[in-house]
Amino acid sequence: MKFAHETLPQRVVFAPGESAAAVAAEVAALGARKAMLIASDREAALADPIAREIPVAVRHEEVVMHVPVEVAARAREAAAACGADVLVSVGGGSTTGLAKAVALTTGLPVVAVPTTYAGSEATNVWGLTEGETKTTGVDNAVLPRSVVYDATLLASLPGGLSVASGLNAMAHCVDSFWGPRADPIDRALAQEGVRALAAGLPVVAGDPAGREGIEQTLYGSYLAAVSFAGAGSGLHHKICHVLGGMFDLPHAQTHAVVLPHVLAFNAPHAPDAERRIAQAFGSDTASAGLAALRARLDAPTALKEYGMPEDGIARAVAPILAAAPAGNPAPVTEDAVTGLLRAAWEGSEPS
Amino acid sequence: MKFAHETLPQRVVFAPGESAAAVAAEVAALGARKAMLIASDREAALADPIAREIPVAVRHEEVVMHVPVEVAARAREAAAACGADVLVSVGGGSTTGLAKAVALTTGLPVVAVPTTYAGSEATNVWGLTEGETKTTGVDNAVLPRSVVYDATLLASLPGGLSVASGLNAMAHCVDSFWGPRADPIDRALAQEGVRALAAGLPVVAGDPAGREGIEQTLYGSYLAAVSFAGAGSGLHHKICHVLGGMFDLPHAQTHAVVLPHVLAFNAPHAPDAERRIAQAFGSDTASAGLAALRARLDAPTALKEYGMPEDGIARAVAPILAAAPAGNPAPVTEDAVTGLLRAAWEGSEPS
Repeated sequence: MKFAHETLPQRVVFAPGESAAAVAAEVAALGARKAMLIASDREAALADPIAREIPVAVRHEEVVMHVPVEVAARAREAAAACGADVLVSVGGGSTTGLAKAVALTTGLPVVAVPTTYAGSEATNVWGLTEGETKTTGVDNAVLPRSVVYDATLLASLPGGLSVASGLNAMAHCVDSFWGPRADPIDRALAQEGVRALAAGLPVVAGDPAGREGIEQTLYGSYLAAVSFAGAGSGLHHKICHVLGGMFDLPHAQTHAVVLPHVLAFNAPHAPDAERRIAQAFGSDTASAGLAALRARLDAPTALKEYGMPEDGIARAVAPILAAAPAGNPAPVTEDAVTGLLRAAWEGSEPS
Repeated sequence: MKFAHETLPQRVVFAPGESAAAVAAEVAALGARKAMLIASDREAALADPIAREIPVAVRHEEVVMHVPVEVAARAREAAAACGADVLVSVGGGSTTGLAKAVALTTGLPVVAVPTTYAGSEATNVWGLTEGETKTTGVDNAVLPRSVVYDATLLASLPGGLSVASGLNAMAHCVDSFWGPRADPIDRALAQEGVRALAAGLPVVAGDPAGREGIEQTLYGSYLAAVSFAGAGSGLHHKICHVLGGMFDLPHAQTHAVVLPHVLAFNAPHAPDAERRIAQAFGSDTASAGLAALRARLDAPTALKEYGMPEDGIARAVAPILAAAPAGNPAPVTEDAVTGLLRAAWEGSEPS
């Protein structure tokens, strides 16, 4: 048992139906008087009740996926122009990401109000895009000081999108068991995340507006983000990153298809992870638990259905071998990766 | 699901056999150049190798239980006299407590190196004693920036003391399930703590110098402290506090005797705690798991053996009813407390 774990400071508030009052309390506790409220026009209706309870100096609606540098620059100018002393973001990963980009250069505190299961609000990772190039970095200045989770803000998120986003969070949890910096604390949080997501996601799939399912899924997504930020990208995320980049595959579906194959590949070599994930699912084995959940969610099964060509299997092997973390539990060989990719491509049983 | 959870910033380093290098790295990362090394003369031999690797401005040996205010004042003077820019504590709860007392007024960062399972290093709670009166408080300034856990430093801790200290940590975990501020995050950490302590303590009892048992027990004690600091004192700690104060009972033994009775009392009214604690023990029920562990550790069973008079049962009921947390899972009635105390006093089966 030899590791260094850094716990990052953050207040996490679960306040179903009460985000306006909860955000106001967090803003007041920071002693802030001029809030820059960041929410896209799609999120305006969710942000309005919050806007009424806090001292808004400016509302900023220009939110763009992957945070282009020009968009970040304009948001920073808007913050400076109004003398903002706190950033309040209401939205998904792109909205939180823009608030982080402003915090990165200004040091302003962020109060994040997530409206998806992306999890960015619980990490110190920022991302900016210049043209085609995405740059990411780690800086504690971008970690939101407070996160306010309000299940009612996700009631209008479509069921399909909820499930895709929640399965993405599940991939964060599973990969956290063998990420390059994974330690026992990350694994304990990831195990609790698996448990919560496995409980919440089927409920959300059956009733996308129901509060209890959303609460469990939000809680699981939060733990997924915390554990993943601690453990770092494991084999699963490296594979998905390579495939996504080479074949322009849809993000959520790629993760959903690949995850059971990586789990089946690593679990025999990671008995503690196997035991913990199985326990979190309440199933005999980790893979059986994930398979049962996927069946209930009608999760995607084959990459060939999302645009990956068959000859892509052979082409992806070398970059995956190059990207695979050195400490992956199972030995990452050319044969093993080829077999894994073929199974994921054609949608056969994970083995 | 409605709660606010505050995660406190701290680096936790597990470095068995390598505390000197690990502490030096933490001190360097803080940019510190003048360390005040706090360790009592009993801990001098453990502190010497660390002293050789860091820039020691002063060694301070006056460590006294419960941190008397005069002792704290002299330590603060010593820190000021040498211009210390970091406090490094090597020792148990009293040593960590003295470093916290200095941090409270000076704001100096603390690097804590625990040599017992007390857990103070992972909390933002400080304590000072003036005459007979102990004052405690909460201040994030006293939370050590870094903790370095080195199992080899506990190899000389006697087995009996290890077990008593570890069972105290177990009581922190169990009570964290229903403390006044207990939330799902606290419970997840407490569950992992129960698991680690249940794994580590029997190994430590059989081989007090063995590294693996100590590592697990240290890890469990750390989680116990984090979860307890989050959840606050539950019924168990309130009962022990009343009994300890009224009858001058030994701390560790009182906790060890009372815990199974509180668990048996609350578990039927706290199904989530019951399920999680049982799972952590790998047993059918929470109480069965704790009973099996206690049997392996030959834990104390009856308060009458530690100086509590029989008529103390009746006398303790009112102060316990007054101190019991409002949200305790089981209704805390006069009859229930009387029955619980009688069972703990005579050492009968918890029910």
